[in-house]
Amino acid sequence: MTIISSSSVAKASKIPQDSDVQKFIYSFIEGGRDMRDLLGGKGANLAEMTSLGIPVPAGFVITTEVCRLFLDRGNYPDGFADQLKKKLENLEDQMGKVLGDTKNPLLVSVRSGAAVSMPGMMDTILNLGLNDKTVKGLIEKTGNERFAYDSYRRFVQMFGSVVMEVSHDLFEEALEKMKEANGVKLDTELTADNLKTLVTEYKKIVKRETKKDFPDNPLEQLKLSIEAVFNSWDNDRAKTYRRLNNILGLRGTAVNVQAMVFGNMGEECGTGVVFTRNPSTGEKIFYGEFLMNAQGEDVVAGIRTPMDISSLEEIDKEAFDELIKVKDKLEKHYKDMQDIEFTIEQGKLFLLQTRNGKRTAHAAVRIACEMVDEGLLTKEEALLKIDAKSLNQLLHPQIKVSAAKNVIAKGLPASPGAACGKIVFDSDEATTMAIDKNESVILVRKETSPEDIHGMNAACGILTARGGMTSHAAVVCRGMGKCCVAGCTEIVVNASAKKLIIGDLVLKEGDIITLDGSTGEVMLGEMDMQTPELTGNFKKVMDWADDIRELQVRTNADTPEDCKRAIEFGAEGVGLCRTEHMFFEDARIYLVRQMILSKDAEERKKPLAELKKHQKGDFEGIFKVMDGLPVTVRLLDPPLHEFLPDTDSSISALADDFKMTVDELKTVISNLHEVNPMLGHRGCRLGITHPEIYQMQVQAISEAAMKVSEKGIEVNVEIEIPLVGEVRELAFLRKIVEETISEYGDDVNFNYKIGTMIEIPRACLTADQIAREADFFSFGTNDLTQMTYGYSRDDLGSFVSAYLDKGILDRDPMAGIDEQGVGKLMQVCIELGRKEKPDLEVGICGEQGGDPQSVEFCHRIGLNYVSCSPYRVPIARLAAAQAVLRS
Amino acid sequence: MTIISSSSVAKASKIPQDSDVQKFIYSFIEGGRDMRDLLGGKGANLAEMTSLGIPVPAGFVITTEVCRLFLDRGNYPDGFADQLKKKLENLEDQMGKVLGDTKNPLLVSVRSGAAVSMPGMMDTILNLGLNDKTVKGLIEKTGNERFAYDSYRRFVQMFGSVVMEVSHDLFEEALEKMKEANGVKLDTELTADNLKTLVTEYKKIVKRETKKDFPDNPLEQLKLSIEAVFNSWDNDRAKTYRRLNNILGLRGTAVNVQAMVFGNMGEECGTGVVFTRNPSTGEKIFYGEFLMNAQGEDVVAGIRTPMDISSLEEIDKEAFDELIKVKDKLEKHYKDMQDIEFTIEQGKLFLLQTRNGKRTAHAAVRIACEMVDEGLLTKEEALLKIDAKSLNQLLHPQIKVSAAKNVIAKGLPASPGAACGKIVFDSDEATTMAIDKNESVILVRKETSPEDIHGMNAACGILTARGGMTSHAAVVCRGMGKCCVAGCTEIVVNASAKKLIIGDLVLKEGDIITLDGSTGEVMLGEMDMQTPELTGNFKKVMDWADDIRELQVRTNADTPEDCKRAIEFGAEGVGLCRTEHMFFEDARIYLVRQMILSKDAEERKKPLAELKKHQKGDFEGIFKVMDGLPVTVRLLDPPLHEFLPDTDSSISALADDFKMTVDELKTVISNLHEVNPMLGHRGCRLGITHPEIYQMQVQAISEAAMKVSEKGIEVNVEIEIPLVGEVRELAFLRKIVEETISEYGDDVNFNYKIGTMIEIPRACLTADQIAREADFFSFGTNDLTQMTYGYSRDDLGSFVSAYLDKGILDRDPMAGIDEQGVGKLMQVCIELGRKEKPDLEVGICGEQGGDPQSVEFCHRIGLNYVSCSPYRVPIARLAAAQAVLRS
Repeated sequence: MTIISSSSVAKASKIPQDSDVQKFIYSFIEGGRDMRDLLGGKGANLAEMTSLGIPVPAGFVITTEVCRLFLDRGNYPDGFADQLKKKLENLEDQMGKVLGDTKNPLLVSVRSGAAVSMPGMMDTILNLGLNDKTVKGLIEKTGNERFAYDSYRRFVQMFGSVVMEVSHDLFEEALEKMKEANGVKLDTELTADNLKTLVTEYKKIVKRETKKDFPDNPLEQLKLSIEAVFNSWDNDRAKTYRRLNNILGLRGTAVNVQAMVFGNMGEECGTGVVFTRNPSTGEKIFYGEFLMNAQGEDVVAGIRTPMDISSLEEIDKEAFDELIKVKDKLEKHYKDMQDIEFTIEQGKLFLLQTRNGKRTAHAAVRIACEMVDEGLLTKEEALLKIDAKSLNQLLHPQIKVSAAKNVIAKGLPASPGAACGKIVFDSDEATTMAIDKNESVILVRKETSPEDIHGMNAACGILTARGGMTSHAAVVCRGMGKCCVAGCTEIVVNASAKKLIIGDLVLKEGDIITLDGSTGEVMLGEMDMQTPELTGNFKKVMDWADDIRELQVRTNADTPEDCKRAIEFGAEGVGLCRTEHMFFEDARIYLVRQMILSKDAEERKKPLAELKKHQKGDFEGIFKVMDGLPVTVRLLDPPLHEFLPDTDSSISALADDFKMTVDELKTVISNLHEVNPMLGHRGCRLGITHPEIYQMQVQAISEAAMKVSEKGIEVNVEIEIPLVGEVRELAFLRKIVEETISEYGDDVNFNYKIGTMIEIPRACLTADQIAREADFFSFGTNDLTQMTYGYSRDDLGSFVSAYLDKGILDRDPMAGIDEQGVGKLMQVCIELGRKEKPDLEVGICGEQGGDPQSVEFCHRIGLNYVSCSPYRVPIARLAAAQAVLRS
Repeated sequence: MTIISSSSVAKASKIPQDSDVQKFIYSFIEGGRDMRDLLGGKGANLAEMTSLGIPVPAGFVITTEVCRLFLDRGNYPDGFADQLKKKLENLEDQMGKVLGDTKNPLLVSVRSGAAVSMPGMMDTILNLGLNDKTVKGLIEKTGNERFAYDSYRRFVQMFGSVVMEVSHDLFEEALEKMKEANGVKLDTELTADNLKTLVTEYKKIVKRETKKDFPDNPLEQLKLSIEAVFNSWDNDRAKTYRRLNNILGLRGTAVNVQAMVFGNMGEECGTGVVFTRNPSTGEKIFYGEFLMNAQGEDVVAGIRTPMDISSLEEIDKEAFDELIKVKDKLEKHYKDMQDIEFTIEQGKLFLLQTRNGKRTAHAAVRIACEMVDEGLLTKEEALLKIDAKSLNQLLHPQIKVSAAKNVIAKGLPASPGAACGKIVFDSDEATTMAIDKNESVILVRKETSPEDIHGMNAACGILTARGGMTSHAAVVCRGMGKCCVAGCTEIVVNASAKKLIIGDLVLKEGDIITLDGSTGEVMLGEMDMQTPELTGNFKKVMDWADDIRELQVRTNADTPEDCKRAIEFGAEGVGLCRTEHMFFEDARIYLVRQMILSKDAEERKKPLAELKKHQKGDFEGIFKVMDGLPVTVRLLDPPLHEFLPDTDSSISALADDFKMTVDELKTVISNLHEVNPMLGHRGCRLGITHPEIYQMQVQAISEAAMKVSEKGIEVNVEIEIPLVGEVRELAFLRKIVEETISEYGDDVNFNYKIGTMIEIPRACLTADQIAREADFFSFGTNDLTQMTYGYSRDDLGSFVSAYLDKGILDRDPMAGIDEQGVGKLMQVCIELGRKEKPDLEVGICGEQGGDPQSVEFCHRIGLNYVSCSPYRVPIARLAAAQAVLRS
């Protein structure tokens, strides 16, 4: 059983249900852009271009439904074989060629294409239909023996590695040897004979590795290729990509079978990838790269460094002019920046793909603004074109303009932003260091491949020696919003020796470098960074979003500095100020420990009084910065044992400090030890057993608020009791808070509310009772998710990857609100709470508050605000506007 | 804010709401038995007896509502003082005496009395109204100076300790000294002069201890006494009693002010406590004790050993005959066994209290059966008279008839059953040893007092040197269903030296003794025990219950022996068979560890194959015993680290066994370590990451079932997947279970279902989805409660007592189903699950399955069965019938 998202269910109804007449294959002339779910993005767009009269090689699409059925059952649905036969015959008729014909062979490409673009993730076969006999026909037809054997060699290599699962490297080695043996550097310098020998060589490799003969029958080649594409849907790379990009509810991939056109038939041929605007900056210029005498994969694989698209005008003005016309037509038609693949076969232009181009956040914002100025989009449409999550890229530090740079190399500015970290040469190592050791790392590779996805995800920047602006590294990094310098030809990467060599300079694993993905510069050491100015187009887009959104956006911030940054990013209040972070600072942790080690409430008074002074200062700073905006202060939440040391040496040091024996201190620590601290003595439970701690905190808040208010600055503080699961907990502590504040009598010159964090399932279920004692609710979805699922975030690691691999979970349950479980509890909570108190303020302050999908959910269920980390505030503002536009 | 139970809310509507006319005080002639909530049990019954024409000293009741208002506000409601004045005047008129009158003083008693009987928990003042002047009037009126000073001395002692909070011991010491000084042994031997001196002595003690004069003004005495009774509602003893007995939703205590009658006015006076039937055995005989020339507390306090009620006939036949008439009338009227207090004042009988008598389970069952035989009750009424929880007493082991007994002493058979454990002399120590160290302890005391409640609760048996069948120890133990030998005069208890001396034998703390509460025997060492026969009246009651109940009752049992016992107790299936318990046995734990320490699935095969043999044997045994009844087998649930050692020495031994270094083994253990194991890698999560374990278990189940079926024994097994929170977990594992069984092909000759435990909040919230993959649901309310509340049962201890003390929780949240939170989730689950699958079987297997209140809830929400430990099966059967009768 597979759960598919409700939106997919709705769309699924378009599929004919009667299997007798079910259509498994669509010709390009039968489809269109609205059939993306069934035909995949590539297939739907090829069909759309065909209907627009744009030159597209003829072909057909096998639907995603066939993929699903094939993967579920292990074989094709009834009737499929007949439909395939007919479509193939039609294609042969159309092209005047026949698959497997020795005189006039039809060659086809077989490409994957899911409803959502997954670049580099799925496998492709070109030149299918070649064997020792048909290659002769191709030579005869084209009169180009070198081209024919180049195509044949490419086909055997692709089919061998993708379908027959022979290591790609073995083919590459044979190719390298052949070049060496003939003293040439480029593939294009190999002769027809060289290539012919290579085909034989390749087939031997296949036989040796698989104990099978390479299949000569073109129909069998086609059948095996289609199956390989289907199976690639469930390979690890594809699953990782879907998981990282939160792609859910798809049926599978479609398969596009298309007549081949050739960019490798000679110097009048070529192939390229272009964007209708610069995907990195958003500038409205025609942008892209091409290679003459090359086939598709050569451009994006980064093996040869391609030419800028502007040079095409000189080489083939006719094709260039037509390409300009086509790209303008496509951008207007799709109302979005397009990413286009083309091939020129002996001077004739063919379009092989168009899709909405991936872009940096910077480009997305600029394109959105300019398309509105051009009248192509309304503001509302423009807002929906920007991936809210991508704004992240705009908000992270850049290298300070004033910083002295020690530039050691320069590559292509492949994905903007700056990053600084330790060099690693291997994706596994990158993951280990970044995830397990929490270090910033820069992944340095000759070139990246889909196998590197996890390392790229873990690294904060990528540096490659080869490949262009559309290389794997560049495309993936822009998608991830991650800094990338690509094609840095000056560097030599020796991965096995773990060395990065630039002239005389030899860097090793662990050395620190800084990358500037906007300039392509590689610098030695760590550079000063700065936050970019949030003006111009960014401000324009944010202003549009603010006009539209209904959700307020607050921030989770514990210091005046964080508050300041969040206000710059547009925060309208503090939704969560965690007071315990204030307890961990050096001078204070001693006081906290003194408090914990006190024998009774009396002895505890002294350290508490000292702590109060510190806390008062913290709150003053925050209230000043927030200047009248609401500030939600959560009273102490973690269990006391978190404040005590856990290593022998630090225990012994602390014992000395407190004039205890180590054994005495260990006894205290072991008495505080908990089997499941997550479900233990913390939050309001601590407030109830140690009311003096909360009293101190409320005094610090009150005294800070009074002092700031006296200076004419308004204070609106929301005092938040954590971990309430039973109304009497809140009632008990509310009384203590009220009594504590009332001791200041008429001096109380600030506004306050008393409310609770909703993070225990029982709080949701009894929200009507709790609402009676609460002025506000704030969902703590981190804990709520953990308790609703019965997962401990700290322990999830041991099984979550198995869950994601097996499709039991669609994504890390902590990454966004689980609408079916946690979300249902939230809805119950809001309904009960507002039934009791219709104007109850309800917000969210879990990490999910900055996840666009979760923000949309919060809008739908009627929250008043979302609160997230400062850097996510702009994301939340845009996502909140998009939520309104989508609802 | 206080949550009151819904039943109280309903009854509360009887209270006049208009405060202008609110009646705070009721004369006995104004009340009746249906006003228990407002007048308390004692007051309502005094009023009822008054209206039945039974001789009750005149008086009035201050309502529980006044108590609530007084405790909430700290003072009396408006209008109360006026009402009190009028009622007092009425009483004075009726008695022809005046409070504080020096010639003819009215003396009153002030007694507490809540809606639910709380014996020994609340405080009482007798002889109120005496001072140096009125005592003269009393002497004049009665001509009995000794009596007057005895009353005065008692009054000062009670008032001094209860109202003025002077230690009771100080008065006792003074009394002892006086007796010593005069060379007498009994209080009754003291002369009027002795007692007069003692009064002066007592007042000095009060002055010395409190710096206050003893109040001479009788009205002030009354006012202070009423307040003291009210305040006693919230004292620790009362709160502990309510908590232990799960008494919720009461407003407070009423106060009964009643004209004094005197049992201590001479040898024609007396006082006693009687039961209409034997509360220990249920036998229909007049049962009880009395003391001549004594006042109320003397009998129950156990200070003098009282006489059997039958002796009263010889002493005062007239009073005896009248008492017989009254008790018969009361039992018929109340249709229940009565516990009656009486006083004889100069030959005239007065009734001071009647209430439904506490009884042992044995007595309850016998009385219920005999009252049905007598035509006094219907079967349905009779079932409702038995406290389901009390059946516990009938089911626990008795000393084996054949066992050789080393009887070292004999006391009164105060509460039946047998117990064996280590001697402790102190209630705190009893609690420490029993609760913290999980040891069986026998609490040995000179006599018990309400301060011992927690120790009595913790001990498995109580032995006292003093006190009779109605002493504190006896009454409380019968209520608790705990074995008690009381009034064992042969023993000397030296608590401070921690010694129990019987002649030459000196036992110390930690020595083991066995008590037989049915014979009063005290034996040295540990005795063989046996389960009682479940026949006769017990069987009759159970049969009635079985006819009525709708819930099926299953048992939680992991071994054939447990299954056998449960069937004897009437279990209709196994609701939970925990397979991990089978893993912990000696020979197997090695295999389990071998499995855990295997490097891969291949290496894991060998120990798994061995484990399968063991598990198969276990299941064969269980299937045979259950003989066609359903057996729910839960697949492995705990995290793997639970099977590994945790001490240095056992780690080192295991490392040797497995030829690993200690460091290697410690690494494995630390890799398996979890921060919150409760929310970690266990249950179905383990099944998904290690499918070979569940496969092995399903094979063991299947092979056992096939083998047993071949012998003609039907097998109905329900395979249960634990900890499901997401339907795809269940779907994944269901497939594995089905595939594993299907490998046996046509050999599968047994019936099976595949279902899940519902113990994760998210499972309840998505129960419609989960029901699609489940043949049954079984609520695991232990984990469900922990996750819904966010409590870890292991860590609850650090704050739960504070929660209970402060009234934030009404009882330990693990003790019964929390209807407002956990219960709501259960209802959501059932509704969603049955919407998807209307005939879905739903049960409960948490510990709450044997809690009568929870059983009633399970009946209300439509469960198919409850499952509990074998010993609780009869409780569940009765509770299930009561649920039907109450609904």
